[in-house]
Amino acid sequence: MRVASGTRESNTRAPSAPEPSTRDRLVSATGRLLRQQGYAATGLNQVMSEANAPKGSMYFHFPGGKEELAAAAVDRFAARITANMTSLLARRNVADAISGFFDLYIEHFERTDFRDGCVVATVALDEAGTHELLADAASRALHTWVDLVADALESEGRPHAEAHDLATLVIAALEGAIVMAKGERSVEPFVAARNSLQRILADD
Amino acid sequence: MRVASGTRESNTRAPSAPEPSTRDRLVSATGRLLRQQGYAATGLNQVMSEANAPKGSMYFHFPGGKEELAAAAVDRFAARITANMTSLLARRNVADAISGFFDLYIEHFERTDFRDGCVVATVALDEAGTHELLADAASRALHTWVDLVADALESEGRPHAEAHDLATLVIAALEGAIVMAKGERSVEPFVAARNSLQRILADD
Repeated sequence: MRVASGTRESNTRAPSAPEPSTRDRLVSATGRLLRQQGYAATGLNQVMSEANAPKGSMYFHFPGGKEELAAAAVDRFAARITANMTSLLARRNVADAISGFFDLYIEHFERTDFRDGCVVATVALDEAGTHELLADAASRALHTWVDLVADALESEGRPHAEAHDLATLVIAALEGAIVMAKGERSVEPFVAARNSLQRILADD
Repeated sequence: MRVASGTRESNTRAPSAPEPSTRDRLVSATGRLLRQQGYAATGLNQVMSEANAPKGSMYFHFPGGKEELAAAAVDRFAARITANMTSLLARRNVADAISGFFDLYIEHFERTDFRDGCVVATVALDEAGTHELLADAASRALHTWVDLVADALESEGRPHAEAHDLATLVIAALEGAIVMAKGERSVEPFVAARNSLQRILADD
């Protein structure tokens, strides 16, 4: 399972699969650039060029411009993370599922030399205060992830409020570990946070 | 105690205190802008204007340009956070100190309408991959904070490795809660993560 790559999709697609649409390519390129460099540094010219998108297609598909495009990229990224988490939580207890999710990120960081962070995090820190569409997309993603983990913790018998608080801690730790791993250019913070969470989540 | 404001210093300084130097003003303005909008969006013209700094002073004080200035701002921000944490840890047990530190951030977010994030986080996500000076400053800050909390946990009797992992989780949760609070424009994730950590840290 892969943690939300973007570019690679086209490399692993079977030869018979349909070409991604211009809209798809715009959203993928935007998501990739947001993970790597944040909202402010991501220019529309760079997106158009990386998406190999014809001039004019951007405003045809996204009349709201850069913000609407970025919000679509946040939604797509969020859906992929949600699918990964759901799949892990369906097969394992919460402690092992979260640990496994952290492992996916560790592998991803190692494979990409710490290039890719989290679209939600870069958008939240750079722009949520001034761009309502983007803030809404980031907020939706974070709530979905917290609820997913909270439900799983409740189904393991944790009381509702405790499950919510602990799930929030798990998602905060994930976002913060991404900050630390990128800042230190090391997976060590990710490994340490994972070990600690594993201990806490396995605790009854 | 205040969590690393920047601007307000000049408003609360006693009339007899010396004026901050141009260098000081450049570093303060940069720190403030990095917290609010990240590295990419922070232009030198804006820094010069907010710092009320004479033309030419930037390269006199920071021959390395924007990156050197930003690294100085990260170091100053980190020192202030370290001082706040050290002071809390000296007076309370770790659970209450960390809870108190989260409370400072909650108050700060409420006072500033979620404007100010963490300099280390914005720098780590936007730029650590391509700017060595900045990555070093972010990494130094994160290591200092983890070590501070880990030492306090060890002095409460936690084994060395467990203390390190748990301290990493605390700092990750702090950075991630900032991401979530800014993304959701709500202190709720901060409150939830704080409650969860309080429970975990108070546990023997």
